[in-house]
Amino acid sequence: MANLGFIGLGVMGGRMAKRLLDAGHTVTGYNRTRAKAQWLLDAGMAWSETPCAVAETADITFSMVTNTEALQNIAEGADGLLAGIGQGKIYVDMSTVSPVFSRELAKQVAAKGASMLDSPVSGSVVTLEEGRLSLMVGGDADTFEKVKPILQDIGPKVTHVGTNGLAVTMKIATNLSLAVQMLAFSEGVLLAEKSGITRETAVEVLVNSVIASPMVKYRGPFVLGMPEEAWFDCYMMQKDMNLALELGRELEVPLPTTAVTNEFLTAARGMGLEKQDFAIVFDVLARMSGVK
Amino acid sequence: MANLGFIGLGVMGGRMAKRLLDAGHTVTGYNRTRAKAQWLLDAGMAWSETPCAVAETADITFSMVTNTEALQNIAEGADGLLAGIGQGKIYVDMSTVSPVFSRELAKQVAAKGASMLDSPVSGSVVTLEEGRLSLMVGGDADTFEKVKPILQDIGPKVTHVGTNGLAVTMKIATNLSLAVQMLAFSEGVLLAEKSGITRETAVEVLVNSVIASPMVKYRGPFVLGMPEEAWFDCYMMQKDMNLALELGRELEVPLPTTAVTNEFLTAARGMGLEKQDFAIVFDVLARMSGVK
Amino acid sequence: MANLGFIGLGVMGGRMAKRLLDAGHTVTGYNRTRAKAQWLLDAGMAWSETPCAVAETADITFSMVTNTEALQNIAEGADGLLAGIGQGKIYVDMSTVSPVFSRELAKQVAAKGASMLDSPVSGSVVTLEEGRLSLMVGGDADTFEKVKPILQDIGPKVTHVGTNGLAVTMKIATNLSLAVQMLAFSEGVLLAEKSGITRETAVEVLVNSVIASPMVKYRGPFVLGMPEEAWFDCYMMQKDMNLALELGRELEVPLPTTAVTNEFLTAARGMGLEKQDFAIVFDVLARMSGVK
Amino acid sequence: MANLGFIGLGVMGGRMAKRLLDAGHTVTGYNRTRAKAQWLLDAGMAWSETPCAVAETADITFSMVTNTEALQNIAEGADGLLAGIGQGKIYVDMSTVSPVFSRELAKQVAAKGASMLDSPVSGSVVTLEEGRLSLMVGGDADTFEKVKPILQDIGPKVTHVGTNGLAVTMKIATNLSLAVQMLAFSEGVLLAEKSGITRETAVEVLVNSVIASPMVKYRGPFVLGMPEEAWFDCYMMQKDMNLALELGRELEVPLPTTAVTNEFLTAARGMGLEKQDFAIVFDVLARMSGVK
Repeated sequence: MANLGFIGLGVMGGRMAKRLLDAGHTVTGYNRTRAKAQWLLDAGMAWSETPCAVAETADITFSMVTNTEALQNIAEGADGLLAGIGQGKIYVDMSTVSPVFSRELAKQVAAKGASMLDSPVSGSVVTLEEGRLSLMVGGDADTFEKVKPILQDIGPKVTHVGTNGLAVTMKIATNLSLAVQMLAFSEGVLLAEKSGITRETAVEVLVNSVIASPMVKYRGPFVLGMPEEAWFDCYMMQKDMNLALELGRELEVPLPTTAVTNEFLTAARGMGLEKQDFAIVFDVLARMSGVK
Repeated sequence: MANLGFIGLGVMGGRMAKRLLDAGHTVTGYNRTRAKAQWLLDAGMAWSETPCAVAETADITFSMVTNTEALQNIAEGADGLLAGIGQGKIYVDMSTVSPVFSRELAKQVAAKGASMLDSPVSGSVVTLEEGRLSLMVGGDADTFEKVKPILQDIGPKVTHVGTNGLAVTMKIATNLSLAVQMLAFSEGVLLAEKSGITRETAVEVLVNSVIASPMVKYRGPFVLGMPEEAWFDCYMMQKDMNLALELGRELEVPLPTTAVTNEFLTAARGMGLEKQDFAIVFDVLARMSGVK
Repeated sequence: MANLGFIGLGVMGGRMAKRLLDAGHTVTGYNRTRAKAQWLLDAGMAWSETPCAVAETADITFSMVTNTEALQNIAEGADGLLAGIGQGKIYVDMSTVSPVFSRELAKQVAAKGASMLDSPVSGSVVTLEEGRLSLMVGGDADTFEKVKPILQDIGPKVTHVGTNGLAVTMKIATNLSLAVQMLAFSEGVLLAEKSGITRETAVEVLVNSVIASPMVKYRGPFVLGMPEEAWFDCYMMQKDMNLALELGRELEVPLPTTAVTNEFLTAARGMGLEKQDFAIVFDVLARMSGVK
Repeated sequence: MANLGFIGLGVMGGRMAKRLLDAGHTVTGYNRTRAKAQWLLDAGMAWSETPCAVAETADITFSMVTNTEALQNIAEGADGLLAGIGQGKIYVDMSTVSPVFSRELAKQVAAKGASMLDSPVSGSVVTLEEGRLSLMVGGDADTFEKVKPILQDIGPKVTHVGTNGLAVTMKIATNLSLAVQMLAFSEGVLLAEKSGITRETAVEVLVNSVIASPMVKYRGPFVLGMPEEAWFDCYMMQKDMNLALELGRELEVPLPTTAVTNEFLTAARGMGLEKQDFAIVFDVLARMSGVK
């Protein structure tokens, strides 16, 4: 069993740390708000006061934070992970951040004699808890092989996609379709509804059709009643869309459906729906159609 | 066992007629080109020289043709289905056509004392042959109940979605997502590829991800090698997109992702790729990205 | 002075007929609602009871109607223009209709021994009244030369753009930019306004900038107060956009900005703003931005 | 006559400095590459070795650089403008940069006891040389009044649009229409051309029509032959579009036509046309239409 660290114990990060504890590993954790990690401390997790201390203590440190800025915050400075990490250690970041920043961070980690992997997750809380989470990994093959068995304690499907930053790139390349598929789905539901089909029937047909991705199956029913708490809100979804659009401009790949859909996420925010699950693009389109 | 008729024995129609024959029904068929139906005649299907004659002979007549114009051709005129259909008979059209025209045709059928259902199929040749085809049905409930067992001989999942024209509406509302999902998928693959991930890896990750609808699973691998024969070519896909856009304008539903994607189908045709499977939107985007 | 006929005496058509009368020509008119033409009868215009009768009486007949369907109505049937037109006569249609239909009608006119020109106008009521209207003309060069001096009595700038149907094509190719420019202008105004610039200042700067087309100069101030009566309402504007999109598909020209903008005209209609001038796309975008 | 400084003496900046010299002002200049400023030194301009030295020498310092990063470079550090500016001095930045950065810089300038204005220009080299340039100004009213007569020596039309950063905002809000209008214009030309109208005729009609903004009049003829040197290349145009899109997200204003058009600028770059004038979006669309 390994000596692990985990920085960022929110909704996703906390549940990952729990799975690592359950698998029998030693886990030292850090979170900005300690209270939110109490359930993990109760479950046997050790505590460190700074990201730096976690990285000093653990052989392999994981992190899971909100965005590029938050990653920068835990990595840099006197209390930061970079200050604590050293020769032979491994660092695995599971956040969805700018691939450019991820690659830069990997270089800084390497300069300390340690190795970094980026390993963003694809899937939701439910998928994670059911132990069906997919993980993509970017970084060198040797480090990947060392960490692979531990990643499998988080989720069974672990794929090495290339060098540093490429897993997070692959995540972004996947996620743009989330919002686009949801908006196209909404277009279909509203066409059906204004033709005289009930919204319930339209949703039922679509979530059982050839266009029903796992995303459509999860979120399709949201147009019948949005969840009280967003699974992935407009702000977070737009963060990923912006990462995709930035990457598209840098790499010279036009992203027509991403670009158009992103403006509807902006509209959702403009209409005061920012905190809602991004499935709320349905409501934006419904209002534009004179529905409700 | 029922006394059935089948007009339009192409790739999909022919295989449906075959399933009806296999289920033990009597089937009288008509196709513009008789030679293409020879395999069905060899399997025991009877032949009629006109759509009119099929409708006179059969108690329940099915049709499966390319577009609204083709449906008009088999329905109207001295040799047409309307000339042959009469009191108490049932007519089931399985084509994807304009819902407005479908509803008008249903009225003309009703004026003859017969009943019409629209029952477009969702799925491909493979799904059909494996007996997993989904069918939506529009029309009155009584007629639906009568025809339901026979439709189940074509595919197991049969759903009554509403009155005349609504099944074809539901089909159109589904199909717009086919092209949109494919273009968004292409955006993701190209982002990954230009970042340095191999196209093979990108496709493998995406077809196993949360965005992998059955459509994405089928067509995703096409970007590694287009099929020699299109499953559903750009011309046909654009036909459905145009039906959706027409309906959107009539019903006042904005269709942003449909509209943008449709212009890429136009581009595919402008670039000489009309006969290719609509997955070729990948190539349009790849050329715009300077790939290949 | 010439012996002219004029079919369709609405807002634009009536004012054109007036200019022809003022220039000293004999004009025989027809309009579906005679009362609306009373002011022209008072000004010396003669009256005919049908389009057929106008075409029989006049050497050169003009028409100006709402759309392709309306043109079909005045052209076909026992009372229609085609029934009255004969050897050596000339017919000039000034409506914005489907170029395909315009070309077909030109063939039917030619079959009667007469010649047709399509000559849609570019500009508004104001431009027309000030005698500054531009006219494009499609048809053969000989007929063009014969009619040119009379067209110049309507507006001074008359350009022969090609064979039958091409003037109306050129009109459609121009008009798509009207709506696109208006939506882009609205994007700019809202960016400025939400940054803290007053809407008045934003409009003033933009209508004096490098993007200020005559259209932007006319309509820009509408975002400060819509006109009571639309100059060109959403329904009419969308009619022209649909003609453009149809043509684009037929000719295999992708029209990305046209397609996206058209969905905002649909949204305007969905939000109950159909009768407003198409500048109302500003309001659609404003609502999506949480403004007002 | 005033004691002025000018930092950034490229194509636009150099010509502005020349107009200030011609008006009789004393001008001290700085440019990264001194050689490019030789013609101004020959015309009587004084030279300083750093932005800092310019700001120390002059009462009012102007700057005109490529982008936000370049502005940061001349402003910060030991040699930077901020190090040299002091009590009672005025600084006028004429670059098109991030409004957020412009506002931050204004605060830093104020902390030194000086005042800043942002005054981006709207128009081209030609407009500038003809003395017809429009200038928008952001900043406090007192400083504006002091600088106004000098700005009028650059261009006659000077408008105070609001507080710091708002002039550059207004510039961005204007510029998004440049690219959108050009793409819509291209759609029209290609529709006309594939219908059988010559490209020359299409351009001539459009640049004389209701959609002919000064931008369309300048750039429309480019589709008949691109200029050897770009007036404003795809890279620069996309920089402004990105500033608009960033601002749209920050302020929650959806920018549908901007977003779609921007992907065609990306395509231009993907197709290797980055250095061309942004009118080259015509070529992108032409290739997608199978033209050329």
